[in-house]
Amino acid sequence: MTHHTVPAYAALSPQAPLERITVPRREPGEHDILIEIKYAGICHSDIHTVRGEWGAGGDYPIVPGHEIAGVVSAVGAGVTRHTVGDRVGVGCFVDSCRTCESCRAGLEQYCTGELGMVGTYAATGRDGRTTHGGYSTHIVVDENYVLRIPDGIPLDAAAPLLCAGITVYSPLAHWQAGPGKKVAVVGLGGLGHMGVKIAHAMGAEVTVLSQSLRKKDDGLRLGADHYYATSDPATFTALAGTFDLIVNTVSADIDLDSYLSLLKTDGTLVQLGAPEKPLPIAPFALITRRRSFAGSMIGGIPETQKMLDFCGEHGLGADIEVIRADQINEAYERVLASDVRYRFVIDAATI
Amino acid sequence: MTHHTVPAYAALSPQAPLERITVPRREPGEHDILIEIKYAGICHSDIHTVRGEWGAGGDYPIVPGHEIAGVVSAVGAGVTRHTVGDRVGVGCFVDSCRTCESCRAGLEQYCTGELGMVGTYAATGRDGRTTHGGYSTHIVVDENYVLRIPDGIPLDAAAPLLCAGITVYSPLAHWQAGPGKKVAVVGLGGLGHMGVKIAHAMGAEVTVLSQSLRKKDDGLRLGADHYYATSDPATFTALAGTFDLIVNTVSADIDLDSYLSLLKTDGTLVQLGAPEKPLPIAPFALITRRRSFAGSMIGGIPETQKMLDFCGEHGLGADIEVIRADQINEAYERVLASDVRYRFVIDAATI
Repeated sequence: MTHHTVPAYAALSPQAPLERITVPRREPGEHDILIEIKYAGICHSDIHTVRGEWGAGGDYPIVPGHEIAGVVSAVGAGVTRHTVGDRVGVGCFVDSCRTCESCRAGLEQYCTGELGMVGTYAATGRDGRTTHGGYSTHIVVDENYVLRIPDGIPLDAAAPLLCAGITVYSPLAHWQAGPGKKVAVVGLGGLGHMGVKIAHAMGAEVTVLSQSLRKKDDGLRLGADHYYATSDPATFTALAGTFDLIVNTVSADIDLDSYLSLLKTDGTLVQLGAPEKPLPIAPFALITRRRSFAGSMIGGIPETQKMLDFCGEHGLGADIEVIRADQINEAYERVLASDVRYRFVIDAATI
Repeated sequence: MTHHTVPAYAALSPQAPLERITVPRREPGEHDILIEIKYAGICHSDIHTVRGEWGAGGDYPIVPGHEIAGVVSAVGAGVTRHTVGDRVGVGCFVDSCRTCESCRAGLEQYCTGELGMVGTYAATGRDGRTTHGGYSTHIVVDENYVLRIPDGIPLDAAAPLLCAGITVYSPLAHWQAGPGKKVAVVGLGGLGHMGVKIAHAMGAEVTVLSQSLRKKDDGLRLGADHYYATSDPATFTALAGTFDLIVNTVSADIDLDSYLSLLKTDGTLVQLGAPEKPLPIAPFALITRRRSFAGSMIGGIPETQKMLDFCGEHGLGADIEVIRADQINEAYERVLASDVRYRFVIDAATI
């Protein structure tokens, strides 16, 4: 297989700031698509991975980026799903085994085959090579893992949908957020702000549970019906037994039992990020109201397409701040300080 | 309201053995049923309650017993649901608010009204008086909280269905155990042995996960397809990702993450008993396969009737050891030592 090299921003070690290098991309095979990347979102997990905080298996250099929006610039001979000029996106994975029960069900993110879900970066692909992500000018991806971006969504605002968007859409859809349902979104960051937009567009009554009321005006503008501060103990009294569904976008330790007590009978609290340490859970709150504590991870390819189409219909994109590639390191610090409303997106033309 | 007294076995203090006393029962009101108790099962929670381990609100004397089978001996003028001579049962509660969302949905066990679910014993009823349970010759219960026992089930084997039976039936039904589903039952005690029988009758493929293989022959006879020892770490490797549903009947601390790893994508681990301390849970196992950790508590009146009818159709009752009332204290010690296959049932004629 022949390769060519493309410019990218990469971390060369856990301690190093990202810098411009070149990385190899394979020549598009029969079912491959060469995408000219226009925008790549910055996800908190990019930072965890490049800094080695998740014990990432990937060898350095690591080129992060799994919120990719671009345009098809070449296709392999066997490609049928996309054509040159199409607006397309790539999310958190670029391959999976395709034969296990999960893959056949369109839940490739839960692939149990030997290959497993192949992450868009810092993973090992079918060809044995390390994958490199979206902080780059081009990427080559199998057509089955490339999404269509509807015309209604600008590419820069679309990029974060590929991770932040689907991560909240999938549990909202799976646990049936919609008219008559009361949904709480914990945390108003990259995921949370999309959670509010999407849950509101689905017709649910949406409450934001945030540490403080600092972003209240934003929350209401994004579509929340109510906004409460979790630093105020009165919130947990006032809202006891209220919600059908709570989507927790916060990875920090939380007092699970307090949040579980906010659920109605048969309600579900869905955890989207993994805290570093195990959380204590007293099953009492679960048992006495048949509540559930569940997890959810991004979404499968069919559901990601459904999410993009849904966002297209409802005119939803992420609220973003577009940056130049040379601002990535500064942006990382601002992400860690929660100083972003609500997602940084790298203009790939500046790479 | 007038009262009469009836014999009962009661604890007079947390330390005292149970002894024979008399307790008041109200005269049957318009919608009340007077039941001549034939058998009362001994549930582990009886022991917790009389010994004050659950910080029971009830004043002593406490008359335990919420697995009650008997015969209707008198009915109030307005009773339409049962008639004299009917074989009937009473479970863990004898009243609830009847107006909250849960009660209207037939989920009285999750009543959120001011009255709440009124426990069959050691609770405060609508009339402000303490309820007394089934270790007695008679009980008076509102007709709406009295179940029909199908002819196919002997009354002694039926008694434990009113708590042990419905506690496992409800989650098995709610999470859709049935043909094509792989269900694990953790613990082969009073609840577990009914879990195996019911899950098997529902058509599921049933695995018992027990500390040792000591009761393996029993487990297979009761309907289990497979039987594994959880003391053997190889069990957790062999069964990783296997089950659609795990019903945990064990209240002792367990390593939740190990059990969660046995679930398929979208699988659910249902906790039925509350351990004394919170359990640590690492959301990673939930997130990476969209698994759920849930709780469930007994069942509502309509579902309890459904369970009894199901057991009648399938010829299911509990495996029991019938004892005299003067053996209750000895039986308690044997329950605490897990030395019962699988439920003690008191012959109320010996009270």
